[in-house]
Amino acid sequence: MIDTIAFDGDDTLWHNESLFSMTQERFRTLLAHAAGQDGSAFDASDIDRRLLAAETANLRFYGYGIKGFVLSMIETAIEVTGGRVPARDIQTLMEFGKSMLAHPVELLDGVAETVEALASSHRLLLITKGDLFDQESKIARSGLAERFHGVEIVSEKDPATYRRILERRGVDPARFLMVGNSVRSDILPVVAVGARAVHVPYHLTWAHEEAEPPAENCWRLGSVRDLPALLATL
Amino acid sequence: MIDTIAFDGDDTLWHNESLFSMTQERFRTLLAHAAGQDGSAFDASDIDRRLLAAETANLRFYGYGIKGFVLSMIETAIEVTGGRVPARDIQTLMEFGKSMLAHPVELLDGVAETVEALASSHRLLLITKGDLFDQESKIARSGLAERFHGVEIVSEKDPATYRRILERRGVDPARFLMVGNSVRSDILPVVAVGARAVHVPYHLTWAHEEAEPPAENCWRLGSVRDLPALLATL
Repeated sequence: MIDTIAFDGDDTLWHNESLFSMTQERFRTLLAHAAGQDGSAFDASDIDRRLLAAETANLRFYGYGIKGFVLSMIETAIEVTGGRVPARDIQTLMEFGKSMLAHPVELLDGVAETVEALASSHRLLLITKGDLFDQESKIARSGLAERFHGVEIVSEKDPATYRRILERRGVDPARFLMVGNSVRSDILPVVAVGARAVHVPYHLTWAHEEAEPPAENCWRLGSVRDLPALLATL
Repeated sequence: MIDTIAFDGDDTLWHNESLFSMTQERFRTLLAHAAGQDGSAFDASDIDRRLLAAETANLRFYGYGIKGFVLSMIETAIEVTGGRVPARDIQTLMEFGKSMLAHPVELLDGVAETVEALASSHRLLLITKGDLFDQESKIARSGLAERFHGVEIVSEKDPATYRRILERRGVDPARFLMVGNSVRSDILPVVAVGARAVHVPYHLTWAHEEAEPPAENCWRLGSVRDLPALLATL
């Protein structure tokens, strides 16, 4: 019997990766233009590969979030253009970042109703990874904050993180279920600490988060709407 | 009688503003060089003023921390040079940021002994403001983490933040004391919720944090070393 359900935020409760993906598209267009001007070849998949490499290498400095993404875009733009990217393009990249940070929070289909329904029967937590300031702002703007018994914003979602949260809140892993879109962050470490997890894939996944789901204690749903029916069977 | 003592992190337990100040000095030198090349006038105090204006305007997007500081330096460099700052200088600014993020954590004089001594008589908390990823990294590297009963990393230190922390942890404000270097963040909001505060000034204060201390329930010490003697009188 599950008594505590935790939800991931980005791409589980609200759209997020689509915003990164859209910005990355704008980044490619900007660089294509810059590269075109000096006659050098331009390869969109090469840009994506270099940006992902920069983001991954910079995780140890910046952690997850939009500010680190912007700094990695600037770094990639300088590298790809051999230092010829004009300052006004770098300014544009910073404006992309501010647009992302100020972007309205758009809930996924079915989230508002499902969270409201489950809040009356279960203790709900929100466990989200990333930048403290940005995540707090999104939670406030989501309109969902009051449905959650507690909110945890963490810098990394590994088994130690989940173990710490469950211990501090006195939650038995056997009665805990995590719902999220990232197998790497929301599913594998949760199953590793003896709890259960529900994977609700988002139509986009950041390459860094890709992983194979575990064979046991994990269910996959097409929509968060199907969660109450699944819970009735557990 | 005080039973719970909370410490601020940056410039209370470990050096921080000196790192920003040193980086800002390097930023001025870099811009002086860039401005000199195209013959335009250069005024160091004007640079400082513009950087502070950018940081302040960007707080609503970036919150506090090194990544936002780097983005504000880049923005200021582009603005001050009228867009003529070369990409290699922007790369240098990002390297300044990575150096700051990887910089060793240096405890202030007397901190290690005082925290260790008080940990045996009081419940100690660490309440620090800023970037989650960077603050967690500094706490881990400080070697002090185990002395604290709890750690709170917050995006803003206002009365609501302190009220929430004290309520959640079941701490009576009348038995709570906060120790910090910032009147604006560590002293005024704490006194406002009915608790007491000890101001231990750092030799540098970011202009954004400057404020006048309150007349009551606040003490000023020259060093954290003097804290046990003060506690004995409360």
